[in-house]
Amino acid sequence: MTTGTLPHHISRQFDHELEDVRSKVMAMGGLVEQQLFNALSALTENDMELVDVVIGREVEVNSYEVMIDLECTRILARRQPAASDLRLVMAITKTITDLERIGDEAEKVAKMALDLAEKQAPRPYYVGINTMGIHVMNMLHGALDAFTRVDSKAALEVAGREPESDEQYVAILRQLITYMIEDPRNITAALDAVWTARALERVGDHARNICEYVIYFVEGKDVRHISLEQIEKEIKTE
Amino acid sequence: MTTGTLPHHISRQFDHELEDVRSKVMAMGGLVEQQLFNALSALTENDMELVDVVIGREVEVNSYEVMIDLECTRILARRQPAASDLRLVMAITKTITDLERIGDEAEKVAKMALDLAEKQAPRPYYVGINTMGIHVMNMLHGALDAFTRVDSKAALEVAGREPESDEQYVAILRQLITYMIEDPRNITAALDAVWTARALERVGDHARNICEYVIYFVEGKDVRHISLEQIEKEIKTE
Repeated sequence: MTTGTLPHHISRQFDHELEDVRSKVMAMGGLVEQQLFNALSALTENDMELVDVVIGREVEVNSYEVMIDLECTRILARRQPAASDLRLVMAITKTITDLERIGDEAEKVAKMALDLAEKQAPRPYYVGINTMGIHVMNMLHGALDAFTRVDSKAALEVAGREPESDEQYVAILRQLITYMIEDPRNITAALDAVWTARALERVGDHARNICEYVIYFVEGKDVRHISLEQIEKEIKTE
Repeated sequence: MTTGTLPHHISRQFDHELEDVRSKVMAMGGLVEQQLFNALSALTENDMELVDVVIGREVEVNSYEVMIDLECTRILARRQPAASDLRLVMAITKTITDLERIGDEAEKVAKMALDLAEKQAPRPYYVGINTMGIHVMNMLHGALDAFTRVDSKAALEVAGREPESDEQYVAILRQLITYMIEDPRNITAALDAVWTARALERVGDHARNICEYVIYFVEGKDVRHISLEQIEKEIKTE
């Protein structure tokens, strides 16, 4: 199976529990997407109210992580899942760690928006960051969509977009270094922009991790630490 | 229980399996400590052979993560552990993710050692980094020791050292910015030193995460996202 629906169980209660935890992951994912979107909007539109929104909602992201992990542990203890059910639960406990870290990165971006506004950083600093932000937001959306649709092919496709975010990061870094060299008074503001780009690059990494968990759950194969080409082969040899 | 030994089971085979996976985590931890030590030595002693050692052994760290996760999933499927056994397995699957990331950070530090050597970065760049490196290495060692000894009080003590690594990072960053402003030709080398400090700060975060998993396993309480003072209360109210 590369895409599909979840298996059904004799116990409808168990079906219900798995569906419930899955839907909580989706809700957490939706919140994290919103956090990232608001953080980037705060940056590009110089909207300081959005900074407060992101910082204020960070605690909700954390609560989701704790709550979902607790639910996963309860399912493991009570239902003693096997095969793909067990992989789903394990994939979820890993996924939420990455979602929570994306939430952290979104908060960092929001705080940088505040710093950059205070330092009145020149607008050109943001150009590449905005493009990169859209790229990693799309990656996150794609990863969550692959999770929702139980689609390992889609997950592979999204994972394949990660190198582009690395390239974008390197390009932004180069550009920002030229600003720093040009005028040392720009250094601290340019560094804030560097942190922002770095945070977004991390978001790309976490989105790729989520894709790898989706592939693990669907295909039953651990595809961490192997190249995209190898992952493709792993999926095809099913 | 705040310290103690692991419970024994009627099935000696199960005891054996849990002990085996625990000892693999310790072996992985030992390797990651060694990687970090070598990466820092490469940096401070300008030893480029150690850079190769660290990069070469990164694959071993990754293999441990995949192998231990597989073993944990097998234990969950076959043994259907409950209570503290289940918490141990869950704590292990989280711990190894952080250990693997520390391995990644060690590799980054090693690569930066190479970059800094090529750029002939001035020695003062390393001063704070060396001290910070020792601090986070001690944190990692303490976290692994708390894991081995099943000691939540020790874990709390180690987690309490994390803010210091944040402070060290901020101090190093400030110092490096002054070098950048002084002479823009220093900017790229100083930035490499910044990445190194940042990597070490992440090591401190991961070590704290490991401590939180030890507390979760021993105390049965999820202490992520709460302050050190609250964690202390959680442990005392046992």
